[in-house]
Amino acid sequence: MTKYIDGKKIAAEIKAELAVKVKLLKQKNIFLSLAVILVGDNSASKIYIKKKSEACQEIGVNSETYVLKSDISIEKLNALINHLNDRKDINGILVQLPLPKHISENQVIEMISAEKDVDAFCAVNTGKLMIGNYKFLPCTPAGIIEILRHEKIEISGKRCVIVGRSNIVGKPTAMLLLQNDGTITVCHRKTKNLKEICLNADILISAVGQAGFINKDMVKKGVVVIDVGINRDSNGKLCGDVCFEQVAKLASHITPVPGGVGPMTIAMLLKNTIKAACLQNQILRV
Amino acid sequence: MTKYIDGKKIAAEIKAELAVKVKLLKQKNIFLSLAVILVGDNSASKIYIKKKSEACQEIGVNSETYVLKSDISIEKLNALINHLNDRKDINGILVQLPLPKHISENQVIEMISAEKDVDAFCAVNTGKLMIGNYKFLPCTPAGIIEILRHEKIEISGKRCVIVGRSNIVGKPTAMLLLQNDGTITVCHRKTKNLKEICLNADILISAVGQAGFINKDMVKKGVVVIDVGINRDSNGKLCGDVCFEQVAKLASHITPVPGGVGPMTIAMLLKNTIKAACLQNQILRV
Repeated sequence: MTKYIDGKKIAAEIKAELAVKVKLLKQKNIFLSLAVILVGDNSASKIYIKKKSEACQEIGVNSETYVLKSDISIEKLNALINHLNDRKDINGILVQLPLPKHISENQVIEMISAEKDVDAFCAVNTGKLMIGNYKFLPCTPAGIIEILRHEKIEISGKRCVIVGRSNIVGKPTAMLLLQNDGTITVCHRKTKNLKEICLNADILISAVGQAGFINKDMVKKGVVVIDVGINRDSNGKLCGDVCFEQVAKLASHITPVPGGVGPMTIAMLLKNTIKAACLQNQILRV
Repeated sequence: MTKYIDGKKIAAEIKAELAVKVKLLKQKNIFLSLAVILVGDNSASKIYIKKKSEACQEIGVNSETYVLKSDISIEKLNALINHLNDRKDINGILVQLPLPKHISENQVIEMISAEKDVDAFCAVNTGKLMIGNYKFLPCTPAGIIEILRHEKIEISGKRCVIVGRSNIVGKPTAMLLLQNDGTITVCHRKTKNLKEICLNADILISAVGQAGFINKDMVKKGVVVIDVGINRDSNGKLCGDVCFEQVAKLASHITPVPGGVGPMTIAMLLKNTIKAACLQNQILRV
């Protein structure tokens, strides 16, 4: 029997726990606040930041959204981020990616103070993840690990195949699975024998961004499939990278899109915001 | 025909090029200096730092060696590193690992200013490597890439298997091979089917630290073998992780120990020291 992983439900459980923590922090006079910056009017980005703000509200975290024109100068963006870095009442700052082409994402990410970098994308937070000595984990990789933990799927000794090597998902997910004693393989557009490699996977993570990319001929029976892709199919319907119906027949566990990794990513963002507030207020545990 | 890779010779070629750069910098009144810190009296460490100092001398870089007692306090070590961070005439600082148990290596590494961290072990330099936007590369992984480049071994699309997942070798080597479009697999003590995975490798990197770990049954014909291990065999003779004689018969290329990766690591340290001096003096290219 295939287990359809309900990311929305797991995320709801986590958010309920986080809401309790937010309440406890309020009792200590710590009121959490997340700043969300959107540059331009990418329609997907608009939906994401709306979801993030709603999730904040759900658990009692304040959120401030800054919507900036797509032609904003890097200097002005820097000034805003510096201002937010300095504000004691802001615990976390996130800049929704992608950014317009004239702005370097790397440069902007590095403007955010590492202590408020709740996406954990800056160099020092990335390095800490790789070294294994981290405070924040990037949200999607952390969400994937939480799903596996929740479903009691052992990672240790398992062949974990990650398709996609982005800085945001592929690489950090590989590093996290490695820290959990998985044997990791990272594949990408230059990989030969992709099918053969995927067929060896006990845990298959797809973060490609292409509908229908992983089909039934690429997975073995009993595989755990985590679909990170967010695409539109030919009918304009939201879907992942995985041919869900056919792959589900072979998988022991599979995440749907929507309702799989996505809600977990947002839950992890909230977790990081609380963690940031605790660190900023020298609270070890809440 | 197996190609025995002569790391000593490749390193000598690189050092000759670097010596020219050092001379050119001297003409600009920039005199390079590397500070090397040894804590305790680990006999292998003593040999390594001696080799590093000699290599500096060879290309005209000054080196200062600080030998500290093994019971030194972290505060005193911190004071020394801070002093070296502040000194304008010191371009690079390296603390020879391992450190005595009472001192946290992570903590000490983070004391070194990122601009002088010529081992590239600190979190921000590690993160920059992973993101792909780096100034320094850690020396052993960089040395491995240089060997492959020198031998005109294509990495793109190749199955690269890294055995060992240390922060110093395994993980950064995997990230660098990935950036060079290799398909990477990282194995470790929890890996099952290690033999089967190694048999699929086009490029096999062993960084385990165990003599005789990789034998002929674990490699396919035509494999490129890079041996990062430094061990003693039962006769006390220096050797790598690989059963050299038997694996060499199958490999297209193989690095010996000693004389393979080791000299390349030192050459990369010199390269980083020059790079550090250039960055500190706003020189884009020498």
